[in-house]
Amino acid sequence: MQLGKGVEWTAHICAMLPLVPPGRGLSVDALADYFEVPSAYLAKQMQLLRRAGIVQSVRGKGGGYRLARPIDEISLLDLVTAIEGPTPAFRCTEIRQNGPCGLKRKDCRRPCEIASAFAEAERAYRAALASRSLASIAQEVAVNASPEHLLDIAGWVQRQVG
Amino acid sequence: MQLGKGVEWTAHICAMLPLVPPGRGLSVDALADYFEVPSAYLAKQMQLLRRAGIVQSVRGKGGGYRLARPIDEISLLDLVTAIEGPTPAFRCTEIRQNGPCGLKRKDCRRPCEIASAFAEAERAYRAALASRSLASIAQEVAVNASPEHLLDIAGWVQRQVG
Repeated sequence: MQLGKGVEWTAHICAMLPLVPPGRGLSVDALADYFEVPSAYLAKQMQLLRRAGIVQSVRGKGGGYRLARPIDEISLLDLVTAIEGPTPAFRCTEIRQNGPCGLKRKDCRRPCEIASAFAEAERAYRAALASRSLASIAQEVAVNASPEHLLDIAGWVQRQVG
Repeated sequence: MQLGKGVEWTAHICAMLPLVPPGRGLSVDALADYFEVPSAYLAKQMQLLRRAGIVQSVRGKGGGYRLARPIDEISLLDLVTAIEGPTPAFRCTEIRQNGPCGLKRKDCRRPCEIASAFAEAERAYRAALASRSLASIAQEVAVNASPEHLLDIAGWVQRQVG
């Protein structure tokens, strides 16, 4: 069970995007350079965030991606769902209906007990991700970083947006 | 983020294996027929369970796989770890050390805040899976099943082990 690399990349990107001034954005190429990740693959991940309403794109010089809503309204669950889709990790294929002792479909109105147990664990996982906003993470990053490092990042952003 | 099909298959199989009489086992072919799943792929999943000490194999006529320990000592987490391995769903590649503003390695003794948040959610997921024994699930299945269906399954197991 693996989350795609895009989840890590976009979490870092979203934690940085609040530094972008109003009306400006960061290009995929700039973001790919910043994190040393492949630009083409990152472009796809950013499109997924755009479709989910997490980022928006700004055209023209100094344009690119910026957050589409306040960072405290974006949770880690929003990010994972945008990148990975809403499909649960455990997919029940109803094998209890298979084979020589298979249940009839009409006797399967109640969800499979095994699928229910996995669904419960996934609810706990999703609840934990939903309870963490990107704002709280960005704040932790800022608290733990040195002032020099924060200035370094802010300076880089400023240079990109011109 | 997906769990392999082997997790579903082996959860159903482990819930059934307590019906196997002492000293006997169920062959992979019989289990594959029972659930209508591919025998070769199931064989690999059962080997993973054997390596994890969840099932053991019994040789000879009426031989095959049986549980290696009491079913109330096997959790859904044991099963998932056996099939999927212990690797976390979120893998931190330390991209905070990349690029023009990358942190130096010596400044990264504290875990990345993003990786920590995902690890916390995974702990909630694993704790939920660890709290569910296969015994509790098998019991739920038995309580929800009709007596005829349970006799049907027990009869099938008896025919396999001769």
